[in-house]
Amino acid sequence: MEKVQVFSPASVANVACGYDIFGFALNGIGDYLELQKRFDDQLVITEVEGATLPMAPEKNVATVAIKSLLQEIGSNQGFDIKIRKEVIPGSGLGSSASSSAGAVFAANSLLGSPLSKMELVKHAMEGEALASQKPHADNIAPALLGGFTVVRSCEPEVDIFNVSYPEELNVLIIFPQIEVKTAEAKRLLGDTVSLDKARIQWGNVAGLVAGLSTGDWELIGRSLEDVIAEPARKVLIPQYDSIKAMAMRSGAVGFNISGSGPSMFSLYREQKDLDQLKSEISDQYKALGVECIFHQSTINSEGTVVA
Amino acid sequence: MEKVQVFSPASVANVACGYDIFGFALNGIGDYLELQKRFDDQLVITEVEGATLPMAPEKNVATVAIKSLLQEIGSNQGFDIKIRKEVIPGSGLGSSASSSAGAVFAANSLLGSPLSKMELVKHAMEGEALASQKPHADNIAPALLGGFTVVRSCEPEVDIFNVSYPEELNVLIIFPQIEVKTAEAKRLLGDTVSLDKARIQWGNVAGLVAGLSTGDWELIGRSLEDVIAEPARKVLIPQYDSIKAMAMRSGAVGFNISGSGPSMFSLYREQKDLDQLKSEISDQYKALGVECIFHQSTINSEGTVVA
Repeated sequence: MEKVQVFSPASVANVACGYDIFGFALNGIGDYLELQKRFDDQLVITEVEGATLPMAPEKNVATVAIKSLLQEIGSNQGFDIKIRKEVIPGSGLGSSASSSAGAVFAANSLLGSPLSKMELVKHAMEGEALASQKPHADNIAPALLGGFTVVRSCEPEVDIFNVSYPEELNVLIIFPQIEVKTAEAKRLLGDTVSLDKARIQWGNVAGLVAGLSTGDWELIGRSLEDVIAEPARKVLIPQYDSIKAMAMRSGAVGFNISGSGPSMFSLYREQKDLDQLKSEISDQYKALGVECIFHQSTINSEGTVVA
Repeated sequence: MEKVQVFSPASVANVACGYDIFGFALNGIGDYLELQKRFDDQLVITEVEGATLPMAPEKNVATVAIKSLLQEIGSNQGFDIKIRKEVIPGSGLGSSASSSAGAVFAANSLLGSPLSKMELVKHAMEGEALASQKPHADNIAPALLGGFTVVRSCEPEVDIFNVSYPEELNVLIIFPQIEVKTAEAKRLLGDTVSLDKARIQWGNVAGLVAGLSTGDWELIGRSLEDVIAEPARKVLIPQYDSIKAMAMRSGAVGFNISGSGPSMFSLYREQKDLDQLKSEISDQYKALGVECIFHQSTINSEGTVVA
């Protein structure tokens, strides 16, 4: 195979109580990457669509991730890389993870798939680290593997597993077009938490894993609570409380910030007509001069795929 | 029914990563309570075997718990209460929880079972609160309900659920006869934790719930890690690191402090002959002039039962 096109999904990280550990992939929104083998050892980004990204191979998450992969397997294969981004950088939907995951998956495919998806995680993380300083996998894991993922640990080794969930689970993404700096969002959290709050958080973590696994919607709903990141970070998202209240009234099981925002997610027990809700939210943001994008889908169970 | 005898199991709380939320019940060790209806409204502790307990009804966890139950259901039934304790107070095996849970279960049975076991939790907690100041349910829940339990929340409402686990899971309890004051053990923890440690803890919480549910022994083993309570509290248990190392060498999946100690638990994938390990541990404690008691069993799946 000389050329491959892959799809790498957008993803929601943190998922309320699972700061830095939970994530799930989305259907119908993601990055498309086309890789073609070159006759030399260069990694060349030939085209980027949908966003303005650095083209220099040492500054683009896709090429950095591929380079890490090539080093492990001792290959000096070069690639031409085209990137079509549907996941807008800064959306809180794992934009850099989507590109990094897609890049290593595509390169690995063209090289005869020497590594498993799980083994690709750490290379995709190298790309992600470029965008967010500290390597983490809470968007990489769902982008690559699909489904609902838990990053139990990143160091010393990457330890990731999937949690089963009710298939009918539906997601509404609400993305107001404002900028939230991840660094600022992280700073707001501070370095310590009270033991009482930490304890509430791990009660919810246990509840969400158990609720998803057994399809206990009541437990899922009660556990979709975040006493650590949400209270600190919601100030960065205009109208947050009001939007959350509207979403909960629309029948959501739970609602929270996607990653470090500004996107928010609202979870439902089934596919629902949410036109009314979207229109109300749009109106509220329009009054502030802010455009709002929506995306509605089930959870993506496949992760990165040849497209 | 005028008279009933019940068995209420000992239990292990915290279970490494699940400080204040996880617990499981033990087979073959617990308190026996015999309740007989009186012709008046008095709660009278007529006999206590196996430990020295306060006999005054306002100072004994069993009578305090029963009184809370009677108040809810509007009964003024009196009982004579005999308590035979196998769970030694201060062992870290939920002694007061075992008596409180057994007491409300027995009284409820004699009154025609107006409340479910889940509804009895909050009354048993009233007894437990007498022994440990703050009401908590991490020993009450497994003692009453059996199995592996999660206390997601105690306030404003008690929210408890069971997690399924591999039936072959075996437990060795190691109880060196020293005293650990729960208040001292709590003080050692402090009021805050670093966000990094909290994050590790909830990664492990997610891992343990998922591992137990799916029978993934590797994941169970990796997740049986406590970066918060164990490092602070192990100083209260002589030879802790050495005992833990011996237990892990004996093939344990995981090892940690039971509740706030001094008992420790070691988990195994199957029933094992652990005579060699017990003898080594006994020798080590004997050299310090400390007696050590062992108990080996599977997890108790029934909780309190009519015995």
